Amino acid sequence: GEAELRDAAAYWGKKSGEVQDGLEAELGDKRIRVLQTGPAGENLVKFACWVNENDRASGRGGTGCVGGSKKLKAIVVKAEKKIVKAADRDAWKPAHERALATIMAPENITSPRKGGLSVYGTNVLMNITSNMGALPSRNSQLTSFGADAEKISGEYVKEHILVDDPTCHACPVACKKEVEIKEGPWKGLRMESVEYEPAWSVGANCGNNDVATVAKMIDLCNDYGIDAIETGHPISVWMEATEKGWTNGEGGLKWGDIYGMTEAVRKIAMREGIGNILADGANAVAKHFGHPEIAMTVKGQGIPAYDPRGLKGMGIAYATSNRGACHLRAYTPAAELGVMPFGSLKVDPLAWKGKGELTKVFQDVHAFSDSLDLCKFSAFAEGADEYAQQYSAMVGVPFTAADVLKTGERIYNLERYYNNLAGFREGSDYLPKRFTHEPSTMPGSQGHVCELDDMLAEYYKARGWENGVVPEAKLKELEIL
Amino acid sequence: GEAELRDAAAYWGKKSGEVQDGLEAELGDKRIRVLQTGPAGENLVKFACWVNENDRASGRGGTGCVGGSKKLKAIVVKAEKKIVKAADRDAWKPAHERALATIMAPENITSPRKGGLSVYGTNVLMNITSNMGALPSRNSQLTSFGADAEKISGEYVKEHILVDDPTCHACPVACKKEVEIKEGPWKGLRMESVEYEPAWSVGANCGNNDVATVAKMIDLCNDYGIDAIETGHPISVWMEATEKGWTNGEGGLKWGDIYGMTEAVRKIAMREGIGNILADGANAVAKHFGHPEIAMTVKGQGIPAYDPRGLKGMGIAYATSNRGACHLRAYTPAAELGVMPFGSLKVDPLAWKGKGELTKVFQDVHAFSDSLDLCKFSAFAEGADEYAQQYSAMVGVPFTAADVLKTGERIYNLERYYNNLAGFREGSDYLPKRFTHEPSTMPGSQGHVCELDDMLAEYYKARGWENGVVPEAKLKELEIL
Repeated sequence: GEAELRDAAAYWGKKSGEVQDGLEAELGDKRIRVLQTGPAGENLVKFACWVNENDRASGRGGTGCVGGSKKLKAIVVKAEKKIVKAADRDAWKPAHERALATIMAPENITSPRKGGLSVYGTNVLMNITSNMGALPSRNSQLTSFGADAEKISGEYVKEHILVDDPTCHACPVACKKEVEIKEGPWKGLRMESVEYEPAWSVGANCGNNDVATVAKMIDLCNDYGIDAIETGHPISVWMEATEKGWTNGEGGLKWGDIYGMTEAVRKIAMREGIGNILADGANAVAKHFGHPEIAMTVKGQGIPAYDPRGLKGMGIAYATSNRGACHLRAYTPAAELGVMPFGSLKVDPLAWKGKGELTKVFQDVHAFSDSLDLCKFSAFAEGADEYAQQYSAMVGVPFTAADVLKTGERIYNLERYYNNLAGFREGSDYLPKRFTHEPSTMPGSQGHVCELDDMLAEYYKARGWENGVVPEAKLKELEIL
Repeated sequence: GEAELRDAAAYWGKKSGEVQDGLEAELGDKRIRVLQTGPAGENLVKFACWVNENDRASGRGGTGCVGGSKKLKAIVVKAEKKIVKAADRDAWKPAHERALATIMAPENITSPRKGGLSVYGTNVLMNITSNMGALPSRNSQLTSFGADAEKISGEYVKEHILVDDPTCHACPVACKKEVEIKEGPWKGLRMESVEYEPAWSVGANCGNNDVATVAKMIDLCNDYGIDAIETGHPISVWMEATEKGWTNGEGGLKWGDIYGMTEAVRKIAMREGIGNILADGANAVAKHFGHPEIAMTVKGQGIPAYDPRGLKGMGIAYATSNRGACHLRAYTPAAELGVMPFGSLKVDPLAWKGKGELTKVFQDVHAFSDSLDLCKFSAFAEGADEYAQQYSAMVGVPFTAADVLKTGERIYNLERYYNNLAGFREGSDYLPKRFTHEPSTMPGSQGHVCELDDMLAEYYKARGWENGVVPEAKLKELEIL
């Protein structure tokens, strides 16, 4: 294909919906695909993100901030031919059929109109994690949102505001949940979708039990191009600082203040007033108020929606994720909540033992499947065997489950080696002390902290790393050096 | 349970059927299970084996010879309670259902009354390998049995002599094929079963196209307690020596001499006449006739029914098997013949590249599944994910596909380390020169030799071994030392 650079001055400063509509009109084609930097990225908000087609975000890691610093407003793709065919068409047919069969299987959470992921979307998790004391609430001071969890849950959404179940192209799961707000200050808002992670971030994490405001907050994040998981963090730090009287008269924000929260998103995107501090992320806000310990971050990135005191695997996964706190590098809740393919591998969420080894394996498998640009939810139905078969058929080379693991291990070690060269060395894999020193006070995980040191020792042993650093011998063994 | 040693003088010298019947009568229980040393083991035939329930053999490696040397005639087990229950009953149910579903799936060769393994038994392979130039014939001088393959094939058996499809306990595949000989010298013989490997050994390997004699030979091996795969080897070496005039007037045996062959089995078991030489195995026979190069063995054990000039993976698998030439340590034909689970991983049988790595992975997975005492045929339907799930549920500990591979790798390295300590060091992984230096002359593989050195280099690299020897660092990495 061809590529060209075009002047985007007409779109600078515009929100995602306007940019999408404008580009479709300018190019006279509604089938174009747009990846764009929003106003937040233009203003170098550190957790700005790229937004695809209005409302799907490449959320984490500040991609939009990079876009803004490069003055790159949008990437527009106009496809001229159909998707690439498998190198081995004969092999692709059974590979595809098998993968689809696992996703459709009634045993799996992906099963269309049967599995929880299909029926309620990702937000099926809200009540589950809250009831087990694994839903960080009020900036992780609590491990459950109590009865309020139900009010922002997938079940509640389905009963009260759901209007459609859209799908990504050709996906039978249809986990997206389009909603419409029919009353209150955000009446008339129609958006997709109230996902579990951002619903937690701007919901339980901020003491906000109003599902309409959750939807509004996520929609604002998509409009401005900000990571909706991260956005709750500077806000909840500000809220905790307010609660504790640490704001030094700069003005506070109360838990669940729906107007203050939505206004905060705009201020962040515009770097206006206190928004200029919030826009630098939770670490900066916590430091600004003199209490760096209340930033629930790892390597500068805020945690997602699992409390490592109630889901121990997430603790080691957050700490060792190469891009900072992240649930997607090693989605241990799949095993801890019992939603692995065909009921395999259910492990105790409150046990730390084995979680270091489990995290290594999950990181490796996910590193491979992420590299295929596969939806992470495939992992609720498919395993390394199915991934290997599809990859093998698509590229036309033999590939086994062992190759999947080995390839993933190489990716993960290469990333870590990059981090090591960038200065993340001994001691860089940590958790906020709140998770390791303040025991959970809520049912399900009461009395538990996260045994990070034990899991780290197990994890480093499984990885063959020395306190977070990849030794040269391992790099050579994996043919990275 | 209780164990006791009993005098077996009354059974010494008796064949397997008599021993089984006698023990059932003596103990007044037809449900006893018997593992026995036959007359061949008593006479220290080097490839004598243990026989279970008359006609299922723990065939390879000379187990019966060990039994005979210890004067152990039989082990009788009388079960008093039902099979052990899974440690995690809730986890076992989906694990069991999933495994069974894969075996029943119409895509797989195991599928009851649909898949080739169920319809024809293992001997479905005879025509397939012969047509692709991968069926060693006449002591591996040829790579195909030509039109004669059909006469000893599973298809021929089904059409002419099949009388029943028995199963192992609760198995839906029913790969056993019970036959009855209705005419000729072995008229009245009823036996199970004409399996592919022994049918090849005493069939194509000995230039014998008479399926009734194949059945008779296998039945004799079971009666005397001799490995039916190995038995063809000293005989075919004798036959080749006869053809080439190397027998020095000691008396020869012609290809396909059905009376001479059956008589040879008795002589081997009794170590009578030339049987006393044959009983020491193919290496001894070839050496006796002054041509050690015509023994088709690795580490003293004869190859099974795949010619490594037409199925390259078998070459590296034979060479590196820790117990000598063996198809079961790494059953690469599953991938080379395209009978992997759900059509995954079809590789070119004539390409050597990748076979070293493939063999390592198969050895590791098989080492694990063999340790579970699982039927090898499960591997045509199940992968590491399914094995991990079943093991995890059965023993009640978390276990992943990665753990399966790691455990298998530890087993394989431990075995190899044992071999190294026993003197199998640099250069012990070889093939008979016939496979590496005499090109195939038959269609399908014509002109091909087996590129062993290339595959060995790839294999050792994948294993982290130094020319067949496990280095100390690898032993430590795997926590063997």
